[in-house]
Amino acid sequence: MPTLEEIRQAAAELEGRIHRTPMVESSALNQELGARLTLKAELFQKTGSFKVRGLLYKTLRLTPEEREHGVITVSAGNAAGALAWAARAAGVPATVVMAKTAVPAKIAAARAYGAQVELVDGDLMAAYESIRDERKLTGVHPFDDLDVITGHGSLGLELLADRPDIDTVLVGVGGGGLISGVALAVKLLKPTIRVIGIEPETADVVSRSLEAGEPLKLPTSKSVADGLAAPVCGTRNFPIIQQYVDQLVRVSEGAIVEATRLVMSRTKLALEPAAAAPFAALLEGKVQPHGLTAAVVSGGNLDVSKLVL
Amino acid sequence: MPTLEEIRQAAAELEGRIHRTPMVESSALNQELGARLTLKAELFQKTGSFKVRGLLYKTLRLTPEEREHGVITVSAGNAAGALAWAARAAGVPATVVMAKTAVPAKIAAARAYGAQVELVDGDLMAAYESIRDERKLTGVHPFDDLDVITGHGSLGLELLADRPDIDTVLVGVGGGGLISGVALAVKLLKPTIRVIGIEPETADVVSRSLEAGEPLKLPTSKSVADGLAAPVCGTRNFPIIQQYVDQLVRVSEGAIVEATRLVMSRTKLALEPAAAAPFAALLEGKVQPHGLTAAVVSGGNLDVSKLVL
Repeated sequence: MPTLEEIRQAAAELEGRIHRTPMVESSALNQELGARLTLKAELFQKTGSFKVRGLLYKTLRLTPEEREHGVITVSAGNAAGALAWAARAAGVPATVVMAKTAVPAKIAAARAYGAQVELVDGDLMAAYESIRDERKLTGVHPFDDLDVITGHGSLGLELLADRPDIDTVLVGVGGGGLISGVALAVKLLKPTIRVIGIEPETADVVSRSLEAGEPLKLPTSKSVADGLAAPVCGTRNFPIIQQYVDQLVRVSEGAIVEATRLVMSRTKLALEPAAAAPFAALLEGKVQPHGLTAAVVSGGNLDVSKLVL
Repeated sequence: MPTLEEIRQAAAELEGRIHRTPMVESSALNQELGARLTLKAELFQKTGSFKVRGLLYKTLRLTPEEREHGVITVSAGNAAGALAWAARAAGVPATVVMAKTAVPAKIAAARAYGAQVELVDGDLMAAYESIRDERKLTGVHPFDDLDVITGHGSLGLELLADRPDIDTVLVGVGGGGLISGVALAVKLLKPTIRVIGIEPETADVVSRSLEAGEPLKLPTSKSVADGLAAPVCGTRNFPIIQQYVDQLVRVSEGAIVEATRLVMSRTKLALEPAAAAPFAALLEGKVQPHGLTAAVVSGGNLDVSKLVL
């Protein structure tokens, strides 16, 4: 498991390369949710989500030989843009394997950040592995990776640097990447803090994994919060979550939609549904507010064609 | 006309009572629009728009007798909440006359800020005048008022305090309230600055007034940018706009919608369509970018039910 010293080292390497995102407060939102909230506005991060923290740190840690050959990932969309950006920031060539049916804007984003995009018709994983081996590229997993987890931990350090009085941290959960890094960082710094993960009811692989006592893979996983719809719990993330996360709760699709609109309306942040999971849990009474509660607004990569004016 | 000294005095009185909103920059947006932009993120202002600047200053300037009796306005929605908030902040009772058919969320907002809301079935203006006279209330016009204009001028001072190197200012135009205050402030401070107002093609009363040489009133005015759909050009705003605004341009409804989505996607600001007018003008090539261009993101009171997830 990454140590606090390693997370601090990662944060120091990331400093100046990524944004130090602000904490935002809204008395209207506090009143509406009956909680004392401070929001980590990570939607203002480079590429619009926290993902660049871990992916850039990973890319910076490659050996000179790995850097020269370049990195590769396979993605439905969000990680593609983030890895493309991170690789360019680190001066490393990047290849991204995406389905031909991926959202065109996400394909365009990966290309705009300079990645070579390989569009695939059939089996994504087979194409990924064959390109990786053929071109001697280093595969980068978007969350099941200790360097990625360590990089994500930098967000936890910032939370407590800005607001040492935080009592509870709420984080949306997909495959477990962000929450494992954040939980590790904040618990090592302040063991009394409470960390709660929030999953969609329809994409609850980490909750199920904790119940089963081992990291699971679900046949499918789908949610309006597409950023949380990973069908697999990371094997490196799982033991960290077991040890450092106090509780996982599930929220309904309806609550995620309602929370997205509520937070947007009260804070004027254009958050994506995945980033609204913490607020959905408060709306549904799945989390009892206690003390100062930090909610991570993890990203803002909303499909704006869904704004029907 | 208000003087620079009066605008400075207004800014000093407002300080600490309203937010000092940040300037935001986005290299992705600059690239997309071929301009060097700095965005005044006024959507983070109290009540979600610039309107509280002028309305709070107006309320603070009332005589003791006027304060005691209270203020009244008539509004389709946006000014209602802003005046209700401003009056409460100044410790003055507020009455707001609204149509029974007004958006329920806007009625609720005015009530939540402590205003007495009078819902009217028939003639709004007749009801407004009768309540005002009967209860000895002071009528507050949302833009055709010198104190309101002076208060709005504070935004112009902030622009140049934060970025003295601004060459061009782009401001959306409804009845002329915001642009008259901002143009006055920035031109008095820096006469070489260029100020351009942007109106929807379908709600262009100020452009028509300038063409006619006198402030006009249109029979109707409607736009997807509802915040810019005033059917009347303020008589006090008109001469200021004539003297201090370099140019007015008209933008299409389609460009406003496209600009709203583009700016939201690139900056993660949940702006309302009225606030996207400056970007619509750049998208349509109605404004030639020149130097550092400040675009006022005037508000974020988007109808979030239009976000169809």
